[in-house]
Amino acid sequence: MGEFELIRRYFQRPAAALPAAVALGIGDDCALLRPAPGWQLAISSDMLVEGRHFFADVDPAALGHKALAVNLSDLAAMGARPLGFTLALALPAAEEAWLGAFSHGLFALADAHACPLIGGDTTRGPLNICITVLGEVWPGRALRRDAARAGDDLYLSGGTGLARLALELLRGTDWACQHSAPGALARLRARLERPAPRLALGQALAGLAHAAIDLSDGLAGDLGHVLRASGVGAEIELNQLPVATELLALPLPQRLECLLHGGDDYELLFCAAPADAAAVAAAAQTSQTPIRRIGRIGSAPGLRLLDAAGRAIALPGRSFDHFAAAAAPAAAAA
Amino acid sequence: MGEFELIRRYFQRPAAALPAAVALGIGDDCALLRPAPGWQLAISSDMLVEGRHFFADVDPAALGHKALAVNLSDLAAMGARPLGFTLALALPAAEEAWLGAFSHGLFALADAHACPLIGGDTTRGPLNICITVLGEVWPGRALRRDAARAGDDLYLSGGTGLARLALELLRGTDWACQHSAPGALARLRARLERPAPRLALGQALAGLAHAAIDLSDGLAGDLGHVLRASGVGAEIELNQLPVATELLALPLPQRLECLLHGGDDYELLFCAAPADAAAVAAAAQTSQTPIRRIGRIGSAPGLRLLDAAGRAIALPGRSFDHFAAAAAPAAAAA
Repeated sequence: MGEFELIRRYFQRPAAALPAAVALGIGDDCALLRPAPGWQLAISSDMLVEGRHFFADVDPAALGHKALAVNLSDLAAMGARPLGFTLALALPAAEEAWLGAFSHGLFALADAHACPLIGGDTTRGPLNICITVLGEVWPGRALRRDAARAGDDLYLSGGTGLARLALELLRGTDWACQHSAPGALARLRARLERPAPRLALGQALAGLAHAAIDLSDGLAGDLGHVLRASGVGAEIELNQLPVATELLALPLPQRLECLLHGGDDYELLFCAAPADAAAVAAAAQTSQTPIRRIGRIGSAPGLRLLDAAGRAIALPGRSFDHFAAAAAPAAAAA
Repeated sequence: MGEFELIRRYFQRPAAALPAAVALGIGDDCALLRPAPGWQLAISSDMLVEGRHFFADVDPAALGHKALAVNLSDLAAMGARPLGFTLALALPAAEEAWLGAFSHGLFALADAHACPLIGGDTTRGPLNICITVLGEVWPGRALRRDAARAGDDLYLSGGTGLARLALELLRGTDWACQHSAPGALARLRARLERPAPRLALGQALAGLAHAAIDLSDGLAGDLGHVLRASGVGAEIELNQLPVATELLALPLPQRLECLLHGGDDYELLFCAAPADAAAVAAAAQTSQTPIRRIGRIGSAPGLRLLDAAGRAIALPGRSFDHFAAAAAPAAAAA
């Protein structure tokens, strides 16, 4: 199967199925988009590498889903609406079963968000998936990292930590296996392999929230990017963090590691003025996305954790002994 | 050196240096572009893999140049003006000398075409470079592959074959070394490693030429894409094909292989109505790009070669014995 046959068979779809914003799809030197008048264009690229972002034996349908999901999550964090994406794919071999499942997982998510594949590239090489996603957002409404203000409330969609627990169960890490119920991996695996990008919430927050970021590397680290870009600090109220039952069963250090440094959560972390609390709640309801106020932005730099009594407690380090080895592959999206 | 330090040191440049079309560059979940009102957006992604598109010991500055050049060449073939690009980079290790040279080669070409780096991704992994380039073109003026018409003149910018000869010299292929002068590789290497995307010509032809494609896989094969997409055929007048001195020294079969199937030329092949011949010549002059009329488009499908007397001669196959092995790596951009 040559390159063109591969594209035709697994990735090209009828031009009639393309939305009006796509003037020209796969098959020419470039794709052509018609941006809506006045809107800005949001662009993000993510590269997924075997052994680093996924295991060699991952279900290819889940991989197709996740490769697009992590890019859509970047659009969500910007408050943008998806327009389309390109896919560049390096494959060691053209295996039909793999390609069929991968494209099925990819297109199921693309269709769910009306985000068509508009172009790309395929080549032989060590497995590598690079997606560039394009979206649109109204000028001045994008959720930038540098727009957090002292006094803002800090919010989190869904909750963190289960993707990391699933990863440790997949790896067979002692503490994860010892404190998890039988069948936990089967239940939690989708949190790691099939994240749901929070696009509806992101768009509902555009022009309302001040700053947002999607959580790929862990709550504490990603919040740090917002704090540095905005020149502010933050307090997280530990007892406001949503904690899933599976995480409650873990010893405290590992629980905090999952919650604060877990990675692969693909939730939105955002902040908004206290006066807009009702509008934020309405945005969550409109988008049918659970959110929780987990703290506030302050003017003193740095990140502080507060216990139930409002006392500062030490932020656990990213890697203590247990995780020295675990911190490397698959967990941290680059 | 961590990921963020690597980006800061080698790829992030002052926001002040960004053109007005870039509302937000590197450092957020997405970059933001302001498309000019009414213009369409042209998008292309290309992935370059070690051993397939370049040799492991290639000069990293040349690699930085070429990775962007092949993408800019896609914009040129569409008649589009560059707006910016994203870079996703998988690296086996963060080697400072390599990164310095690579980014230097990349930015030299980007600056020459006012095409800023607006975002991307870096990760550890087998060396892989994926660039997505964005440009703009006025609706209806894009040079599509499906717009060739019977009766059109067929044109070629520059000439073909020298990149392939350079590749064969690099490989030490017998026929290339036997028929080349000493020092030929040093002179020709840039044809393979530092192609010059024909952006000025492409933009001058937008709305004037009927169809265009950039030559990455060889003249005959790439012309075939235009013919199939347009439902037409073509005749090439062999004695009109520009032949560089170095190719004249080759035996005829190898000369034709280089001219017709060489690959990595990154020239523009385009067609236009005979009535527009003067306008096409003016576009070539304005853009300071040599072009040559090499044949015509006809209604009978397929590609025919004509000798000096106008007699059809057989099109040499893509790979005869000599090239059975040579056809595989590095030559053919995927």
